Amino acid sequence: MEFFAQLDAAIQKNNSLLCVGLDPDPALLPHGIDLLAFNKAIVDATADIVCAFKPNLAFYEAEGQQGWNILKQTINYIPKGIPVIADAKRGDIGNTSKAYAKAIFEDLKAGAVTVSPYLGFDSVELFVNNYPEKGIFILCRTSNQGASDFQSLPVRMNNAEIPLYQAVARRAEQWNTHKNIGIVVGATYPEDMLALRQAHPELPFLVPGVGAQGGSIKLTLETGLSASGSGIVINSSRQILYASRGADFARAAAKSAEALRQEINLHRPDL
Amino acid sequence: MEFFAQLDAAIQKNNSLLCVGLDPDPALLPHGIDLLAFNKAIVDATADIVCAFKPNLAFYEAEGQQGWNILKQTINYIPKGIPVIADAKRGDIGNTSKAYAKAIFEDLKAGAVTVSPYLGFDSVELFVNNYPEKGIFILCRTSNQGASDFQSLPVRMNNAEIPLYQAVARRAEQWNTHKNIGIVVGATYPEDMLALRQAHPELPFLVPGVGAQGGSIKLTLETGLSASGSGIVINSSRQILYASRGADFARAAAKSAEALRQEINLHRPDL
Repeated sequence: MEFFAQLDAAIQKNNSLLCVGLDPDPALLPHGIDLLAFNKAIVDATADIVCAFKPNLAFYEAEGQQGWNILKQTINYIPKGIPVIADAKRGDIGNTSKAYAKAIFEDLKAGAVTVSPYLGFDSVELFVNNYPEKGIFILCRTSNQGASDFQSLPVRMNNAEIPLYQAVARRAEQWNTHKNIGIVVGATYPEDMLALRQAHPELPFLVPGVGAQGGSIKLTLETGLSASGSGIVINSSRQILYASRGADFARAAAKSAEALRQEINLHRPDL
Repeated sequence: MEFFAQLDAAIQKNNSLLCVGLDPDPALLPHGIDLLAFNKAIVDATADIVCAFKPNLAFYEAEGQQGWNILKQTINYIPKGIPVIADAKRGDIGNTSKAYAKAIFEDLKAGAVTVSPYLGFDSVELFVNNYPEKGIFILCRTSNQGASDFQSLPVRMNNAEIPLYQAVARRAEQWNTHKNIGIVVGATYPEDMLALRQAHPELPFLVPGVGAQGGSIKLTLETGLSASGSGIVINSSRQILYASRGADFARAAAKSAEALRQEINLHRPDL
């Protein structure tokens, strides 16, 4: 099944727009639990509460040669109905992008990936055109503070002046001939999310930045929902993974995920 | 030794501004040679001709779980005097960048890394400030065709209008308090390289795009050299790695690298 169809099915089945970020930090894991066991316990505890899982590759690469294997086993462990977004933020020239796409879609078998736009279309097209059944989320307005260094710069495009992140979104929409593209839009900039949603009524948004980074769920729903009452996936990592640092971490994660799902659903007008 | 001091020493010792890109593509390797044996043979054949090696992580990730190990062993095999640039093009928010930096500098033990600027300073600072002895090359004007999609857009900065890539270079210079930052500038846009060199007389340039991508060595030297007659590292991958597809591939690689070194040196006015 195509990624975005699978995502919609998971949103319906679990009545959830919540994605859990599988970003295990060895320094924060409960005593005596290794990364893979931790991930499996989190997946078991939350798989019926979420619409997707999103492992960030950095946390696995930091583990060296065994990290890739832990990530692969984690992805393989996730129930088939729940799609996996590999948060890789890759972006390179043609033949190199092809190698990254092979690694992420064929070796790891992720359903979707995040990519960086800085190198332009030829860095994105080998993901988008060679894997029409996969999902490709292009970084647009990221949730971090430094995001404004470049993303907010006013650029001239077609004789209008718009912030760079809006120029990226316009290109993303133009490149979306296979309907397999979404954009990353941080919850920490609700006004920018609103501007993007108004300009792109149906483009899927992957939304980091709630929880530890301070983004508001209420504002995310008010500004980010598509016309059809969906169109956003809200990621949370630390708030769920480290809800408890004790032996009850999995139960605490489930409880935290359930509370987030409910808080999100409170603000979905169509439910 | 700090990365840029080590790089200068290698440039002097081998009288070379040439960097060999260790980007092994399994489909192009000589019959019966595995990736690690190939890399070792290329390193043996070219280590006294180059100033650096630059493995691109994509080609190792495409090999799945053994790829990271092959890369680590390759880096470990490179003679200590020749610095290694991990071409990773990473860029993520704070705690995630920290994990990438740990992977690249502590696990792989690379001397330098390439990073993407799109997420702004907080995506770069954990590389730059936590590892002052390492080199950090920020993507600025990349060599690919799609580079112009965003990098050439006119942006408004301090009431002047400049292309985005020049805005990135200005920030890179401002962030360079530890003198451990360089920028990536493709050989395929010599006019842009000239503009960057004029604005940034001493910033180190890592230059992809000669050979298969069509960039000119002569123009690169004419536009990219710093005031001190150095300041550029010119990468070549395919032209050297696949100079021969037969059993003589290592000798052919050495011959191709030697020809490139000489061609580069022809245009260095201070030799």
